[in-house]
Amino acid sequence: MDIREVFAHNLRAARQAKGVSQEELAHRAGLDRTYISSLERSVYNASIDVVDRLANALQIEASDLLKRPTSNK
Amino acid sequence: MDIREVFAHNLRAARQAKGVSQEELAHRAGLDRTYISSLERSVYNASIDVVDRLANALQIEASDLLKRPTSNK
Repeated sequence: MDIREVFAHNLRAARQAKGVSQEELAHRAGLDRTYISSLERSVYNASIDVVDRLANALQIEASDLLKRPTSNK
Repeated sequence: MDIREVFAHNLRAARQAKGVSQEELAHRAGLDRTYISSLERSVYNASIDVVDRLANALQIEASDLLKRPTSNK
């Protein structure tokens, strides 16, 4: 599993677990909604600064967003 | 602690724990040695692709490189 896909999967899962829309997350993180949407579709190679901003907006750790599923390492 | 500093710290610590020089790590990851050096000094905002390449070269998980020290969260 490509790291972008891992990130995309974890970002969407964490956002949905918190019941936050892409629009609300974009607002909280100071990013564009279309950019969030693209990240969740593995379109971009996000920087660690962006990963951290999204993690903060979701009140999780940046490292959580790059964790590979343990069953499919 | 800024995410770049977290990454810089973890990268250097993991590299040294494996007894790998910046030059050897650069070779394994297909990156320039000066780039590795800059990352370890928090100069650049690395992309997750680069984080993953470095993690693979060090045989660790990409998420390990973004973990904040638990005592200083």
